[in-house]
Amino acid sequence: MLKRRLLAPGPTPVPEEGLLRQAQPMYHHRTPEFRALLTEVMELLRYVYQTKNESVIFVSAGTGAMEASVVNLLTPRDTALVVRGGKFGERWSELCEAYGRPVVNLDVPWGEAVTPEGLSRALQAHPEVKAVFTQLCETSTGVLTDIAALSPVVHQAGALLVVDGISAVGAVEFRMDDWGVDALVVGSQKALMAPPGLATATLSPAAWERVKANPSRGYYFDLVLNQKGLAAYDPAFTPAITLFEALRVGLRLLRTEGMEQVWARHRVTAEGVRVGVRAMGLKVYPKQPSDSLTAITLPEGVDGDKVVKMLRDEEGFIIAGGQGKLKGKLCRIAHMGYIDSYDCLVALAALERVLRRVGVKVPAGAAVAATLDYYCTHDAVPAKS
Amino acid sequence: MLKRRLLAPGPTPVPEEGLLRQAQPMYHHRTPEFRALLTEVMELLRYVYQTKNESVIFVSAGTGAMEASVVNLLTPRDTALVVRGGKFGERWSELCEAYGRPVVNLDVPWGEAVTPEGLSRALQAHPEVKAVFTQLCETSTGVLTDIAALSPVVHQAGALLVVDGISAVGAVEFRMDDWGVDALVVGSQKALMAPPGLATATLSPAAWERVKANPSRGYYFDLVLNQKGLAAYDPAFTPAITLFEALRVGLRLLRTEGMEQVWARHRVTAEGVRVGVRAMGLKVYPKQPSDSLTAITLPEGVDGDKVVKMLRDEEGFIIAGGQGKLKGKLCRIAHMGYIDSYDCLVALAALERVLRRVGVKVPAGAAVAATLDYYCTHDAVPAKS
Repeated sequence: MLKRRLLAPGPTPVPEEGLLRQAQPMYHHRTPEFRALLTEVMELLRYVYQTKNESVIFVSAGTGAMEASVVNLLTPRDTALVVRGGKFGERWSELCEAYGRPVVNLDVPWGEAVTPEGLSRALQAHPEVKAVFTQLCETSTGVLTDIAALSPVVHQAGALLVVDGISAVGAVEFRMDDWGVDALVVGSQKALMAPPGLATATLSPAAWERVKANPSRGYYFDLVLNQKGLAAYDPAFTPAITLFEALRVGLRLLRTEGMEQVWARHRVTAEGVRVGVRAMGLKVYPKQPSDSLTAITLPEGVDGDKVVKMLRDEEGFIIAGGQGKLKGKLCRIAHMGYIDSYDCLVALAALERVLRRVGVKVPAGAAVAATLDYYCTHDAVPAKS
Repeated sequence: MLKRRLLAPGPTPVPEEGLLRQAQPMYHHRTPEFRALLTEVMELLRYVYQTKNESVIFVSAGTGAMEASVVNLLTPRDTALVVRGGKFGERWSELCEAYGRPVVNLDVPWGEAVTPEGLSRALQAHPEVKAVFTQLCETSTGVLTDIAALSPVVHQAGALLVVDGISAVGAVEFRMDDWGVDALVVGSQKALMAPPGLATATLSPAAWERVKANPSRGYYFDLVLNQKGLAAYDPAFTPAITLFEALRVGLRLLRTEGMEQVWARHRVTAEGVRVGVRAMGLKVYPKQPSDSLTAITLPEGVDGDKVVKMLRDEEGFIIAGGQGKLKGKLCRIAHMGYIDSYDCLVALAALERVLRRVGVKVPAGAAVAATLDYYCTHDAVPAKS
């Protein structure tokens, strides 16, 4: 028996109740049942995103909502500034290029977050920028960006702030309205604890104004068309009902626990993992790590892809390797959504086991001991706001 | 107790095994499990679509695959000809307009199919047309188009033939390669018996050449980007794993029965419904009805939307009303996928019950008697090819 444990940064495990909800008999979306489901999901999203803004929900991967943001917020004459410090920063750029939107790339070293000063300089050099696109957590490096600190810089430059929160919202502190985020993109399959296939785009009133004045908004991802359908409880395109059902379960769990508590829990779980990684003699890759996943730099000479494959085939643990220029150099363990501290503890155990098997000298049991000690001595207490 | 029965033209019922497959523990897509799933689904799609061409599978509603066809097959200089005889014909037009593709609309009366002669004249008048967009079944009217007959006309004009098969492929005869279809669009939630959320675009080699020479293919629906990912068993964007699982179940059922038999079964089921409708004194709306759904013209003075609502709230039957200019004038009963002749028999029974309740004089029991008699005297025998 090889028991499977999923700790990849998406898709993440789905709570059993969410899995089972998908097995309900299929029903139609132009019914009171779906109306009630949609109403509840919309309300829960407002809470989880900490916003008064209504979300638009797409049947798509997270990238679909990223595309919606680019195409709807920018006309072909509007310039984007993209913070590029990993694979998903690159994706913002690729999207702008695919749709002929002029783009200024602000490259930051992989593993580091953009600073407000760096962004301010870039915006001063490019006063034509209409919107800044960045990530809350760059999934490929595990870097967290301080969105609250960037927001005044972006708005001072008269631009909109667009945040890809796909691999962090629902796990780390995020307050759309308080922080002045103009557009937020999230996917169902990470901290929201649902299967992949739904994505949301949530816009501030200022962003909606920009969208409504834009004559070239595409079609399937046209925010106005989609928003009208949702407001009438009659989605423009057939909604993925089974995924909506599972999403409701995940969102209810977040609501029941309360976002402050959810963020505190993720903070402790993540810090425990980082403590264990260091106790094992390894490095946490990002300078500013997100509490949703940890990218771990593997020792020189170790083939990271092999480690990930051994973890999968020999130990049953599904984690992620490095992407792009980090391929083979690191491994990434998610600790968001339906992944808890005990899941992380055994993931560190499995990592130690495999590293020792490939000949890395690891202090025996040091990681699990240090991590457990951290968990025993740190409670998940919400930060005072 | 009000037992629910779903006979709407999408979403349609999902077989119990498909529903339950979605409740499997979540797993990752960069694994041997998903590779095996994808390999099997791709092979089954080739069989169901009767083609050697590989499909591109999107996480989206069917409209996403329609958008992919428009954007990838046409550059902004290429003219489309759209056969427009219902809401989904209009959708092809709207898509072309949204992406600035010049479009010639060939309007046919709602309820009728385009003829090869009519199409030929339109193509002669517009030699600039690069691709013809049509429906196999126009869901809003229930009209079936004779794709095999249109194909030579389209190719004689040097254009590509693009078919929206969303509400018919898997139910009525369709042979992509034999009929010379260049691009086929299908959704998961109709005759393929899966939940909504997946859509396929399948292209002929000639269509792929056109796509590869097109520099403006979008991003999320970029066929080349998506095809490359699928060919490497590493989708460009996170696939909706639970929906893939359910889709495999539906496709396996089609494979086990065999497409010729599936088509024959739908033919008998559909004709039985039409016999019953006429026995009730009602009219089948389309002149060329599809075997996947039946649009029924309601008697003058009857509010069709009310009938549909009564069927839902008082009898538990979910069917569809009229769309667009047919709103309130007809009702539509699906008989595709996981809907069988017995489901249709009781749907006719429920329709009679509701019509009598709103004061329509219906010959008592005539529909179910005639339909049952038809089913008793007609076996589902595959046509000789």
